[in-house]
Amino acid sequence: MLVRKLDDVRASERNVLTDGWESARMLLKGDGMGFSFHVTTMYAGGELPMHYRHHLESVFVLEGEGTIEDLGTGEIHELRPGTMYALDAHDRHIVRPRTDLVTVCVFNPPVTGREVHDSNGAYPIESDLAEPARTSP
Amino acid sequence: MLVRKLDDVRASERNVLTDGWESARMLLKGDGMGFSFHVTTMYAGGELPMHYRHHLESVFVLEGEGTIEDLGTGEIHELRPGTMYALDAHDRHIVRPRTDLVTVCVFNPPVTGREVHDSNGAYPIESDLAEPARTSP
Repeated sequence: MLVRKLDDVRASERNVLTDGWESARMLLKGDGMGFSFHVTTMYAGGELPMHYRHHLESVFVLEGEGTIEDLGTGEIHELRPGTMYALDAHDRHIVRPRTDLVTVCVFNPPVTGREVHDSNGAYPIESDLAEPARTSP
Repeated sequence: MLVRKLDDVRASERNVLTDGWESARMLLKGDGMGFSFHVTTMYAGGELPMHYRHHLESVFVLEGEGTIEDLGTGEIHELRPGTMYALDAHDRHIVRPRTDLVTVCVFNPPVTGREVHDSNGAYPIESDLAEPARTSP
């Protein structure tokens, strides 16, 4: 049994900071659960285009407000506490947090934790986590 | 892209109520994500022995307090907002919520949604979700 506290993970190298968001990786591939589990805050005022070509991801909003635009359909959905979105078709999308948006995210397959550090884009998660070098600007 | 709201799921047949807990299944096996994602409240004062023999599960506490006892080691861990436990070895355990304990839970493989309805035990999740009829009292 693994037991971890968010504050400890945030103070560790499992916490990843970027210009647009920060993410505490509570579970990564190495933990052997078959998924990864992150507590991710997307910062107020940001515009975060994302496309995970090889991962499925669900995001559940704990705090804050914003929108998600589905670039495949053009639909815009409101994000509030209690809203979940699931990218079941590797959907290209843009998240626009009006306030800091605190979420819990699940990735399948699990993120290894190395992807973001290897990326050189301004929005590292814009590209697929598995192949950041190929698609980042 | 799937977009769902917790209040809508709680008002639907995807919400499962038992004596000891209730669980809003935001994502089930049929959603094709490869995991299921639940918002589960374990009620104050309960004692919930659980053992998932064929599933891995992570639980992240959003609200409330209690303990989890690892029956393999005898260790007791405090549960508070921000604490996560992950049953990476099909660990037998008992959760004892002191207050209502609101959590988000991820199961791999995903729960189908039929398991609890098929069970006849007072604590349906005591037995493995995949085989409730064999192990429930």
